[in-house]
Amino acid sequence: MERPSAKDLIKGFESGGVKGKKLHVLIVYAHQEPKSFNGALKDVAVEVLRELGHTVEISDLYAQNFNPLCTRNDIKGELLNPNHFNYSQETQNTYKNSTLPEDIVSEQEKLNRADLVIFQFPMYWMSFPAILKGWFDRVFTLGYAFTLEAMCDEGLLKGKRAMLSFTTGGRETEFTATGIRGDMEVILWPIQCGLLHFCGLEVLAPNIVYCPDCLDQSQREAVLQEWATRLRHIIQEKPLDFIPVDCFSASKGFQLSDEFLQSKRATGDVAPTVGQHMGKRFAVGSMIPQRLNTKD
Amino acid sequence: MERPSAKDLIKGFESGGVKGKKLHVLIVYAHQEPKSFNGALKDVAVEVLRELGHTVEISDLYAQNFNPLCTRNDIKGELLNPNHFNYSQETQNTYKNSTLPEDIVSEQEKLNRADLVIFQFPMYWMSFPAILKGWFDRVFTLGYAFTLEAMCDEGLLKGKRAMLSFTTGGRETEFTATGIRGDMEVILWPIQCGLLHFCGLEVLAPNIVYCPDCLDQSQREAVLQEWATRLRHIIQEKPLDFIPVDCFSASKGFQLSDEFLQSKRATGDVAPTVGQHMGKRFAVGSMIPQRLNTKD
Repeated sequence: MERPSAKDLIKGFESGGVKGKKLHVLIVYAHQEPKSFNGALKDVAVEVLRELGHTVEISDLYAQNFNPLCTRNDIKGELLNPNHFNYSQETQNTYKNSTLPEDIVSEQEKLNRADLVIFQFPMYWMSFPAILKGWFDRVFTLGYAFTLEAMCDEGLLKGKRAMLSFTTGGRETEFTATGIRGDMEVILWPIQCGLLHFCGLEVLAPNIVYCPDCLDQSQREAVLQEWATRLRHIIQEKPLDFIPVDCFSASKGFQLSDEFLQSKRATGDVAPTVGQHMGKRFAVGSMIPQRLNTKD
Repeated sequence: MERPSAKDLIKGFESGGVKGKKLHVLIVYAHQEPKSFNGALKDVAVEVLRELGHTVEISDLYAQNFNPLCTRNDIKGELLNPNHFNYSQETQNTYKNSTLPEDIVSEQEKLNRADLVIFQFPMYWMSFPAILKGWFDRVFTLGYAFTLEAMCDEGLLKGKRAMLSFTTGGRETEFTATGIRGDMEVILWPIQCGLLHFCGLEVLAPNIVYCPDCLDQSQREAVLQEWATRLRHIIQEKPLDFIPVDCFSASKGFQLSDEFLQSKRATGDVAPTVGQHMGKRFAVGSMIPQRLNTKD
């Protein structure tokens, strides 16, 4: 199968989509129950993407009984430092020697093949369920997914795209700038910037289904329909906009460079991003760009 | 042993500390290596707190081989709905019937005894390591830690205090309002508000050690010393300030009430909190209050 290069893909997004280009999609799925709404969202994605001629692979973490724990068991053979176990250094070394455990290697190979990764999960405590958190802890090995020399838009997974697709227990009103849980854009910053973007993934807008328990059957079907429609045009989507790594100055401890601080983006009224807020007004739409197109 | 009631404690904090009051402290510790800096921070806490006459209990998650996975295995006996597994509903029921698995019950009993819980961990991907994330996923059972009728300052763990104590890979400059990772206050919102405060815990300022790998031996000792000093006065600390639950209106989908929106806190220039930002300027110091006392 001919697959587009990352460069083609980016061009594709920029020019509004390349017709006929095919993607390889990895869905990392973390729900215990196939009949759940998360299961339905995953099934719709598989169906629609395959219909379009894309190929789809799934990591079904509970079904795989995926081990989320970062322990000594991940290092076969001798430790670099048996007197002081450092998971990150040991696995960096193990990765270099191609002796990571099979379950990690298998997930990294899936990731290597993927142009787009969709994470499908129920939000637990404003974040991933532990099984999916552990997938990142173990699979995004130092040296494989990032180094301190290669981060953000230079991260080692660059050229790939990623999207969070998740359900919440609370309703949408609770996740707003006046809601009891706080703005969902704040909640997504650590994940979308600190994890996905940090490793070089280009981040597509999240697919959020607030409180599926609050929906009746026809509303659920409408949500699945909307998801299918979005996926049909996924190749045309533009990723979120993060500040490029070369706007941060290593000599200032990776803070915004003097040059950037004098630019239009930094001298305006509104924060450049949610996290690089500079004490300014909130950057609405930087984590959930759809919000800019609605009255919300 | 005579222990202060939650009410005494709150009074204690308000009046600047009650001399002679003794706490029972639970340290939930998530590091693989006893010789790590996280191990040292934990050891210092145990030592100092015991010296002061407080009692200390530890959950050493890796040593306990704590299971972080939310699965069917947590439900003994028949399921409420064997055709559609819903972890949260099933464990709510199991909790009501006192048939939760022993490892969860044991952690809940430790929590029941505690006046203060310190979470000691290395930050992995802007959050907890999976083993600690799973501790929250499983131990903070619906019905035990919260219900949708009892949340935030009415949460079921109210009267207890909690503190995050963690290390980071990146340096402090990276976690500022102009840093490449974004402001640590944004990163802490989902955890400190959405998880700890949501369940009624009063949240003490976090203890953050940025990049212990960047410190030499004498700097590390100074950090441990500072931690010891802080712990000696822990009973006098005031918890973070969140907007009380009765300022949110259920009929507005738990958004800020009209009354609150007319109050001084909502009509000022600055956001009331990081998450309830109302599109305003960033609420510096609401997640890391020490920042208000420094030039940062």
